[in-house]
Amino acid sequence: MIRTFDIRRPDERLRLLLQDKIDNLTKPKGSLGRLEELALQIGMARQTLTPSLHHPCHVIFAADHGIVEEGVSVSPKEVTWQQTLNFLRGGAGINFLCRQHGFELKIVDAGVDYDFSGVPGVIDRKVRRGTRNFLREAAMTRDELEACVERGAAMVEDCRRKGCDVIGFGEMGIGNTSPSSVWMHLFTGISLRQCVGAGSGLDDEGVRHKYDVLRAAVDNYDGDGSTWNVVRYFGGLEMAMAVGAMLRAAELGMIILVDGFIMTNCVLAASRLHPEVLSYAVFAHRGDESGHKLLLDYLQARPLLDLGLRLGEGSGAVCAYPIVDSAVRMINEMDSFAGASVSKYF
Amino acid sequence: MIRTFDIRRPDERLRLLLQDKIDNLTKPKGSLGRLEELALQIGMARQTLTPSLHHPCHVIFAADHGIVEEGVSVSPKEVTWQQTLNFLRGGAGINFLCRQHGFELKIVDAGVDYDFSGVPGVIDRKVRRGTRNFLREAAMTRDELEACVERGAAMVEDCRRKGCDVIGFGEMGIGNTSPSSVWMHLFTGISLRQCVGAGSGLDDEGVRHKYDVLRAAVDNYDGDGSTWNVVRYFGGLEMAMAVGAMLRAAELGMIILVDGFIMTNCVLAASRLHPEVLSYAVFAHRGDESGHKLLLDYLQARPLLDLGLRLGEGSGAVCAYPIVDSAVRMINEMDSFAGASVSKYF
Repeated sequence: MIRTFDIRRPDERLRLLLQDKIDNLTKPKGSLGRLEELALQIGMARQTLTPSLHHPCHVIFAADHGIVEEGVSVSPKEVTWQQTLNFLRGGAGINFLCRQHGFELKIVDAGVDYDFSGVPGVIDRKVRRGTRNFLREAAMTRDELEACVERGAAMVEDCRRKGCDVIGFGEMGIGNTSPSSVWMHLFTGISLRQCVGAGSGLDDEGVRHKYDVLRAAVDNYDGDGSTWNVVRYFGGLEMAMAVGAMLRAAELGMIILVDGFIMTNCVLAASRLHPEVLSYAVFAHRGDESGHKLLLDYLQARPLLDLGLRLGEGSGAVCAYPIVDSAVRMINEMDSFAGASVSKYF
Repeated sequence: MIRTFDIRRPDERLRLLLQDKIDNLTKPKGSLGRLEELALQIGMARQTLTPSLHHPCHVIFAADHGIVEEGVSVSPKEVTWQQTLNFLRGGAGINFLCRQHGFELKIVDAGVDYDFSGVPGVIDRKVRRGTRNFLREAAMTRDELEACVERGAAMVEDCRRKGCDVIGFGEMGIGNTSPSSVWMHLFTGISLRQCVGAGSGLDDEGVRHKYDVLRAAVDNYDGDGSTWNVVRYFGGLEMAMAVGAMLRAAELGMIILVDGFIMTNCVLAASRLHPEVLSYAVFAHRGDESGHKLLLDYLQARPLLDLGLRLGEGSGAVCAYPIVDSAVRMINEMDSFAGASVSKYF
């Protein structure tokens, strides 16, 4: 049995007080735009007029995908473990962003098809060496799914214990746009064709082939269509772990930074189980992939940044953090009109 | 005579080397989007493969405008000096942003109609107590314009002497969207109607009245239409000072962070005198005012952020700085494919 999560819907009584506080800072009303909206969201999620954020963490879940056998990805599967090692060396994109913004970076082996034993720094939560090929069978068993969810939730608890109350998630898993496209299709009803994109660089023929494979897999699928069943059937291990992590983060009242097509699908899955999770989710970055845009629209999400990032690793989540921090500083550090003796202007 | 500026056009020979370095970092080519473009721009402007940015400064020029007599602004003129004092107390929007991102903040009295003597922290570069009303006469004399340009340039030199090589500019001046709209109209040829907006909150009738006043002022104007003549005739003092500051910053090879309708007009004026200034300008934020959008399009500028900020003070410039810093860290801190032994993927 997969655990349930007890995610609190923010108490609405605080909203007017927060809005009033924001409106009386020394600035024309609304003139700090998205910072004001963010401050409101974070104050509500944290249930306080003086929110603060501590010990930001960024967790990357890495895993491999059996579906890669079908030629749905332009990158070789080996990139998953190679890039995972590269995160540990500190030379990847996510590393400089984490250093810049003071994030603790955790690299979690959720299910990479590689033996990392003896490699310091990889957090071993491996459930199996990659998923099964979902064109032929379910990507994971029930036990494997349950292990993913538990281990994801436990990772967040480790962060929380150190004082973390804002957490970003990223992924590394060659092939994982394939299960993501299927999740999106089955969870939103948007046509599969609109959910399938070029991944890390397929050409038109490659995209057609990927679509054909996913179309066949969806046609074969005979599960009950429930959220957990879809997650289990199509995988991946890193994605199921991220769903568990997001649900636990929301349960603990933490702010969740969401970036990228894959992680947006994970928050979509989480929100089908517990819609309240969206109160805790800050959408960081609008990707260029057309499916990602449609999915953000579906979620009525307006990401903070639009910088054309398509690196994965959750780089947009960490990149956007200073804006989240700005919103929190705004509500705590700005004077009110009454305090500053400035004529209230519009 | 207003001084000329000797602004270097970046040597194009470095471009291919920079692009090659960026393309060989451990990421799919182009996957860091705008960060890659920024790294290229900054490397070119600084003429190095290993750019770094030190001691960021943010300079706010404050001044009053004679045109306010004509009822073109919804805010009382007193807000200029009140808000200038508020910057010094540390409780304004720009203050928390400067603290957050390590900017030295300089508050410059370019021409506020208020006596700040004895107030610590205001940098006294007052040219006169507000401009003349440009509906009736030129906003400033030639000597006043020259003083503005010199003092703006000297402010930047003060920053440079402390090691600053990235500088943001902001303004505080009730009424300054009026000269800005006129500058934009005369410098771009875009119709005055499209250049006039609501400022800090005019209603439709207010905007019509503002348009009528500016239309009459433009009809009265009998100058030679040269950049400096338009700047002198319509003001303001803080804007002329910012133009001088931007030109000197570019001459010194510094990166200029541009934000807001008024400062975008200042970089427009600067670029008419020295087009090379645009090689040093990073556009930080897209404002909501329709005129600002048209002006950014005219300059082919794609700002980094779109957060609905309309505070002034150059808040968007400082808010965007972490992204500029990310670009610089990317090019210096990421491993190359050769160094990291990762299969080169797309």
